[in-house]
Amino acid sequence: MRGFQHRVPVEEAQEAALAGAVRLDAERVALDACAGRVLVGEVSSAVDVPPFRRATMDGYAVRAEDTFGASAYSPLPLAIVGESLPGTVPAAALETGSALRIMTGAPVPDDADAVLRAEDATERAGTVEVRAPVAVGKNVSRIGEDIEIGDRVFADGRRLLPQDVGLLASIGHSPVAVVRRPAVRVIVSGDELLAPGDTPQGTSIVDSNSPMLAALVERDGGAAEVVRVRDDRDAMFTALGSPGADVIVTAGAASVGTEDRVPLLVAELGELLVHGVAMRPSSPTGVGRIAGAPVLILPGNPVSCLVAYDFFAGPVIRRMAGLPEDWPYRSVRMPLAGRLVSQIGRVDYARVRVDSAGVHPLAISGASVLSSVTRASGFVVVPAGLEGYAEGADVEVHLYDADVPI
Amino acid sequence: MRGFQHRVPVEEAQEAALAGAVRLDAERVALDACAGRVLVGEVSSAVDVPPFRRATMDGYAVRAEDTFGASAYSPLPLAIVGESLPGTVPAAALETGSALRIMTGAPVPDDADAVLRAEDATERAGTVEVRAPVAVGKNVSRIGEDIEIGDRVFADGRRLLPQDVGLLASIGHSPVAVVRRPAVRVIVSGDELLAPGDTPQGTSIVDSNSPMLAALVERDGGAAEVVRVRDDRDAMFTALGSPGADVIVTAGAASVGTEDRVPLLVAELGELLVHGVAMRPSSPTGVGRIAGAPVLILPGNPVSCLVAYDFFAGPVIRRMAGLPEDWPYRSVRMPLAGRLVSQIGRVDYARVRVDSAGVHPLAISGASVLSSVTRASGFVVVPAGLEGYAEGADVEVHLYDADVPI
Repeated sequence: MRGFQHRVPVEEAQEAALAGAVRLDAERVALDACAGRVLVGEVSSAVDVPPFRRATMDGYAVRAEDTFGASAYSPLPLAIVGESLPGTVPAAALETGSALRIMTGAPVPDDADAVLRAEDATERAGTVEVRAPVAVGKNVSRIGEDIEIGDRVFADGRRLLPQDVGLLASIGHSPVAVVRRPAVRVIVSGDELLAPGDTPQGTSIVDSNSPMLAALVERDGGAAEVVRVRDDRDAMFTALGSPGADVIVTAGAASVGTEDRVPLLVAELGELLVHGVAMRPSSPTGVGRIAGAPVLILPGNPVSCLVAYDFFAGPVIRRMAGLPEDWPYRSVRMPLAGRLVSQIGRVDYARVRVDSAGVHPLAISGASVLSSVTRASGFVVVPAGLEGYAEGADVEVHLYDADVPI
Repeated sequence: MRGFQHRVPVEEAQEAALAGAVRLDAERVALDACAGRVLVGEVSSAVDVPPFRRATMDGYAVRAEDTFGASAYSPLPLAIVGESLPGTVPAAALETGSALRIMTGAPVPDDADAVLRAEDATERAGTVEVRAPVAVGKNVSRIGEDIEIGDRVFADGRRLLPQDVGLLASIGHSPVAVVRRPAVRVIVSGDELLAPGDTPQGTSIVDSNSPMLAALVERDGGAAEVVRVRDDRDAMFTALGSPGADVIVTAGAASVGTEDRVPLLVAELGELLVHGVAMRPSSPTGVGRIAGAPVLILPGNPVSCLVAYDFFAGPVIRRMAGLPEDWPYRSVRMPLAGRLVSQIGRVDYARVRVDSAGVHPLAISGASVLSSVTRASGFVVVPAGLEGYAEGADVEVHLYDADVPI
């Protein structure tokens, strides 16, 4: 067996992971599938919105000057000459002294220059009594008021909101070019692993990494394909070497033991850039590249696997997906309710609980304890240069669940 | 035509919308589908984790006392009597003076009480030279160290994180009981509406509400089914009255014009609780109930539709989905860079842009302008009792996109 000769600083390992990772190319998706996706290229409108003069209220299309002087005490009568409904062809003209019943969204006829709202009128026997004057242009959207032909409506890289999808629909922009989801092959290995959904028994344990990693990949805009292999050189060789993945994430067999063949196989199939990182947990993490695809070699221990994913795999996948590379966690600054001890020379990922009294470091007996990341509200990253933080120090906490009130 | 006789305060309309809305019952889903879902009932573990004494490092299982006094200058030799790999049956015993090569995750034999890490040993010719002492219990996880049988691991109502899915897998808890997604029927009506994906032409416009609403419903944990109907009484009657929806959301035909039949039909099929809300935009909003299902009657104007959805439909859907009812937007408090004018007696939904200089109210010519909610960073809600805010006042901005740096 070999120990790690040298552990690489976290920043250096992150740089190695991100080197060469670029936003992926575009795919075209239908409008109903593009919310939350990242736009490729800017979008300009090919149409005016609205494309015709449009009533914004229910009421009566009028010539504004016909209403001047009207009041509740001296209403002015106008002859109703028809009706304009949404989707109909606008009436050709409107003569002085007449009005057209009109609905919100309906086209306003050419000679009308205002819409009198229903509340300011009383209709009886083919006549509408105008009880208030209406100004020119009132309650009428002009052509292109919302968007004119050629207007840039979205910049490249925008993550599409629900209202953005509505806007794209309204200008007839479909399908939509969005960043392709990175295809992430998640390889877990271990003869002791049962499939998720099985019941642990004897010395066999259930693979908890692949469902966790699949959910993380999904969160970060990727599409996960899980491959579970036995501790077998050929099986791992095939899983690592097969084409079709934009990113490869492995969990397990990452360290320097006799069965830890992943780093060696990555070196054989491509290049191993980093092996061993100055952090805790997750020090047996590696970074490599096979046929241009970043390979993130994560420890099999579930907590280490989560932490190494968040430090090294997440930023790569998010960059490829066109998303921000920063932590995908809401962060808050709060005072420590107790001392947070760390070791100089390595980055520490301290799990904490947060309440109104402040930030409480969790007592954790070992890195293996997955419940430490389910009981924790979030984590504090202690840089390699610090021995920790004193009680009362303000620290930045990254919260696992943005919705949890603190 | 009728005007609104009376507009109901926003809070009253929200109460009417939420009255009777309760978290839905459970459905059972596989582990790979439960991330982000809301747990029904608490989860207790039926197993110990780990279920056996487990090595947490690569190295050698030893009797700790055999290593006492070892140092780099006077290493102590132990005879290697075998190997323990993950998933294997643990060796029965370990005699004094011997060691077992062991990998992380492998079972520790009964008589061993520590694991010496590989870095502190040198192996040659069937012997391992111990270069540092190891304390009793070191690098060994005890049975149930992470979770003991009967431990409550998650409380009812938890929104499952990626690591939670891993934990559920590790204790063999599958399938998982989660809150059923509310089935939300989205009904859009209008003879002028083309289907999303079509190109607007003449006086026909493209339905931008249904793709926007479907994305909003999805965001809020619901499953949307879109029904597009013409302005036809029977079609709308059928769309509203058919069973199978937990919530009904309509867009369009919501006001008091001749073609605005949705409120009347809701009253006919069930009850119309609210029609007309003291807010801007979105005043022609209604709230009703058909066969126990909340019905949210949203204006057809896309901006009004978005705003009314967020005020009235979103909280109902999130409550039914087991999610928090609050705004699903990150909020920040910042000073206004200009005056924000509002009208007393109604709630105003002011679209704003946020930058380092503060909060800028957007100049908006009409509610119809969907680009006002795609150009905006978010919105400020001005309560009915205020005439707005002065320049420099601190206001709470709800941000549409939590990722956008400000």
